[in-house]
Amino acid sequence: MPFHSVCVSLFLPPRHPTSSSSAADILSCLFFHVMHYSVEEPRHGSSDRFVLSKGHACPVLYAAWCEAGLLSKEHILTLRKPDSLLEGHPTPRQNYIDVATGSLGQGLSIAAGMAYCGKYFDKASYRVFCIMGDGETAEGSVWEAAAFSSHYKLDNLVAIVDVNRLGQSEATALGHSVDVYKARYDAFGWNAIIVDGHDIMAVCKALLTAATTKDKPTALIAKTLKGKYFPGVEDLDNWHGKPLGKQSGPALEAVKALITDNGPHGLSPRPIKDDAPKITFPKVQLCEPPKHTMGEKIATRKTYGEALVKLGKNYSRIVALDGDTKNSTFAITYKNCCPERFVECFIAEQNMVGVGIGLGCRARNIVFVSAFAAFFTRAFDQIRMGAISQTEVNFVGSHAGCSIGEDGPSQMALEDFAMFRTIPGAVCFYPSDAVSAERAFELAANHRGVTFTRTSRPATAVVYENTETFEIGKSKVLRKSDGDKVTVVGAGVTLHEALAAHKTLQAEGINIRVVDAFCLKPVDKALMVECGKATGGRIVTVEDHYFEGGLGEGVAAAVAEDGGVKVHRLAVTGIPRSGPAALLMEDYGISANCIVKAVKKMLA
Amino acid sequence: MPFHSVCVSLFLPPRHPTSSSSAADILSCLFFHVMHYSVEEPRHGSSDRFVLSKGHACPVLYAAWCEAGLLSKEHILTLRKPDSLLEGHPTPRQNYIDVATGSLGQGLSIAAGMAYCGKYFDKASYRVFCIMGDGETAEGSVWEAAAFSSHYKLDNLVAIVDVNRLGQSEATALGHSVDVYKARYDAFGWNAIIVDGHDIMAVCKALLTAATTKDKPTALIAKTLKGKYFPGVEDLDNWHGKPLGKQSGPALEAVKALITDNGPHGLSPRPIKDDAPKITFPKVQLCEPPKHTMGEKIATRKTYGEALVKLGKNYSRIVALDGDTKNSTFAITYKNCCPERFVECFIAEQNMVGVGIGLGCRARNIVFVSAFAAFFTRAFDQIRMGAISQTEVNFVGSHAGCSIGEDGPSQMALEDFAMFRTIPGAVCFYPSDAVSAERAFELAANHRGVTFTRTSRPATAVVYENTETFEIGKSKVLRKSDGDKVTVVGAGVTLHEALAAHKTLQAEGINIRVVDAFCLKPVDKALMVECGKATGGRIVTVEDHYFEGGLGEGVAAAVAEDGGVKVHRLAVTGIPRSGPAALLMEDYGISANCIVKAVKKMLA
Repeated sequence: MPFHSVCVSLFLPPRHPTSSSSAADILSCLFFHVMHYSVEEPRHGSSDRFVLSKGHACPVLYAAWCEAGLLSKEHILTLRKPDSLLEGHPTPRQNYIDVATGSLGQGLSIAAGMAYCGKYFDKASYRVFCIMGDGETAEGSVWEAAAFSSHYKLDNLVAIVDVNRLGQSEATALGHSVDVYKARYDAFGWNAIIVDGHDIMAVCKALLTAATTKDKPTALIAKTLKGKYFPGVEDLDNWHGKPLGKQSGPALEAVKALITDNGPHGLSPRPIKDDAPKITFPKVQLCEPPKHTMGEKIATRKTYGEALVKLGKNYSRIVALDGDTKNSTFAITYKNCCPERFVECFIAEQNMVGVGIGLGCRARNIVFVSAFAAFFTRAFDQIRMGAISQTEVNFVGSHAGCSIGEDGPSQMALEDFAMFRTIPGAVCFYPSDAVSAERAFELAANHRGVTFTRTSRPATAVVYENTETFEIGKSKVLRKSDGDKVTVVGAGVTLHEALAAHKTLQAEGINIRVVDAFCLKPVDKALMVECGKATGGRIVTVEDHYFEGGLGEGVAAAVAEDGGVKVHRLAVTGIPRSGPAALLMEDYGISANCIVKAVKKMLA
Repeated sequence: MPFHSVCVSLFLPPRHPTSSSSAADILSCLFFHVMHYSVEEPRHGSSDRFVLSKGHACPVLYAAWCEAGLLSKEHILTLRKPDSLLEGHPTPRQNYIDVATGSLGQGLSIAAGMAYCGKYFDKASYRVFCIMGDGETAEGSVWEAAAFSSHYKLDNLVAIVDVNRLGQSEATALGHSVDVYKARYDAFGWNAIIVDGHDIMAVCKALLTAATTKDKPTALIAKTLKGKYFPGVEDLDNWHGKPLGKQSGPALEAVKALITDNGPHGLSPRPIKDDAPKITFPKVQLCEPPKHTMGEKIATRKTYGEALVKLGKNYSRIVALDGDTKNSTFAITYKNCCPERFVECFIAEQNMVGVGIGLGCRARNIVFVSAFAAFFTRAFDQIRMGAISQTEVNFVGSHAGCSIGEDGPSQMALEDFAMFRTIPGAVCFYPSDAVSAERAFELAANHRGVTFTRTSRPATAVVYENTETFEIGKSKVLRKSDGDKVTVVGAGVTLHEALAAHKTLQAEGINIRVVDAFCLKPVDKALMVECGKATGGRIVTVEDHYFEGGLGEGVAAAVAEDGGVKVHRLAVTGIPRSGPAALLMEDYGISANCIVKAVKKMLA
């Protein structure tokens, strides 16, 4: 009964017809025999989730939704055309797609996050299906997701590996060795089943086994042919991505010849079981305002855990993830308070970010993900794709900069702001004390988009009253006089260096204005220009970060739009070594002493 | 005969004593029974390689080199102190360490690169040993490396997993389930052997088996105890990283009690077999100069493959890596010419970068690594660590920006320069035509540090004479008149938009100066300031990249140091969609038309 698959592969797309056709039979099974979903409301909270990790095969996904009745045949023909929602890879600009795919190996982590949500938070019947290519299983992130999924016994998760043997530029490393794929998934704790991916009955039967397997996720190792059903193309190299060209005619004929019933087939999805809770996000507030004392020394990383607790007390859908650094990032504070809303992801940052994106899908959770800030570089691709997926995950990075001291450069984030600032729509905070940190996390919880907050390892003095209010995109003036000669902009640990420099310079009769950047994206351009102009057109920025892409370039580029203000940037001047924090800040050019020198030089 | 291990764990370091002691017996075996190396010349080309992937356990490595006679006992006591080379995590600032570790899960890829070099390029006897923690095997990069190593039959590679059961913040997901580790390595094509990691005889025997195993890498799954030999600490949670405190006394006593022979033990490494070829790097030149015609349209990605061939003809140690995109990046041109010097890494960018770093170690190869530029974000952590490792890998990213068109945002690098510009010492090129591209690759091959070159998907017109010379850090003025009103700085595809804008504006009587940035790091500050000042203090930058961390911020920050020049930045204004390149460049704000408008606005 291969007629469904014929329907979905009937459409010969101008790109990726061969990667689409290898998965067509599998999608037929899923969309018309297995999955419970709503065509009217594709993102219904209770419907099964589907992730096409091999995003380049999106034509088959569009065709399935066409067959299901959501898209018209005319619509399908707009693929990759200007203004068409049918983009070259899936994005959630379409209402039946939860996440963007196209950077390979990411779908399974996201699917695992959705499955975790379904099993542990929603406690609902919906299940999660993820189709992967065979080539992409070379990505390590797939194995991070595999280990995570079995560890958490995600028996509501099914991965289907479309083993069509052929990559983009040559055969995959494993070819059609489905036994090797099975052995790997088995070893990673899955229920792995080898199946002929073009045998509808066999695929459906395996999916039924998956549905009744307890405490383990199931992987279908589906042996398929790339370009299935297309004469002169099927299972041949050098057809990746390409239109079929002069093979199109024979392909269409071959496919049409398989159709035994022209329909209408009256296909419809299986009905949903509406047992997932309805979720709405209120404005999330700290359950009580900050209660600190001016001058008290607290590490903002410690504040992170405390702020989460204050947010979580008011709202049950705050979820925190960490990768075996929770006792350093202080996510452990939240775990100790709300263990059921904390997800330990072990040392696998790519998967952690993917799981976070999955947990946040369909607006079901407000997600915070913490790590040493340096280790988010491990997941830059996932974060980048997260923005295309319209995720609202909040990232929190601790142990940044040379101010962490003795652990050395491998542990020092010195490029985290450069990375997060590139994320479209992201908001980047770098609070300098406990009061502003609490408010940063509150702002993050309410922001509809990616946020990144850098916390500090060293304890820093409280500089704000508990009543101080903070806004996205707004910096704060902390020292000001009529005779200020230079504006010094710091953030986090360097704000305290700037305050110390202010004191030193004031004793020498030189007044400087001190600005706490607080928010590094968006930059508070208006304030920077105003302060710069008020202080003789002179700004010094100082950051515990490399020179590129952080506070200094952000401020310099903002004020350069108007011109008339000079910006001298202090940043970490090379790869730091191990040593005491104060010594490193001096040696690498960002101490109070370095600020004093820079101010004097600017005035010379 | 555990006396060696006692020696290397005798030193109770102030940090990570427990992670060190679990590996101490293994290091004893390796350093004094198995490995062939030279204490006098630790980086000898023929000596065995050792990578401590669990870098936080570096005290045991320092202790081993002390026992071997390279470091004094006094030196050992300088750990983590200012000016000591004994940093908190290993870095190649020490002459017996090839690569920095400390971001977990990266060592095996590097070791695989070294082993690949030994087996296929050097065809030498040296072997490669990599010690990993159990927690870090959750990192997907480990499984990318595992798949790579078995695919290429790296039987000169041994991985030793120190399964001490305990992570930083809790027990690992797998605890002491050594059978699961073995199953995973077996499934990934390794010869996996379970061994008691504190049984010297058993470890040595397993290492002997490894030495005689053909066509497969060997993994020792070593069951160990964290804090081994330390009473009240051994195998207990909450001791990660910490000094032993009041347990130090009992620990020292317990360890001393195990010493049956106070020595001197006369330990020395096994002698090297000096059969690796001697390598020297000459100045590498294209075997013939560029031979293009002005105005001819060539994609710079195509030039990449051709330039590699021209370099490789002159020098046999040019090695190219790609991850199943070689027919798009045109690394395939090099593969077709020099197949034995091309390494297919499949879809696993993290491992590809690690292998590249490993291949470049001890200055044995000039390494080029290509991918879609967007997918280098997958390996940002490896690239960041590569800089700390003093690597000289050359990265080449194709298919960047919205100018790739229909494939959509998942495939568009729009943050690659922000990423690579943060890498300390990195040089970043963005050639605009075939002539400058050839020279960029020649400059890259000779640069002693990381380089990144972005190539373009669309064909662009040749704008330089074949005799033009190029330098790192130098931009080029392509259009100039005495009456220029604005300087427009483009690079790559946007240079051609700038040239088109020049033509349009000239027809309207407005002259602009057009600069080809060519090198985005270091920025040619002197030229930017000179041109900016010569054109009324006005610069427009235009880049196929997001606003943050790329050309615009780089130029703006450079000129803001002197002040007096306004910089208006044109960059990609949001997440692009699928569509024709020209349309996207218009819609997202970086077309010739957008430049014309920006220039007029600046003059209004």
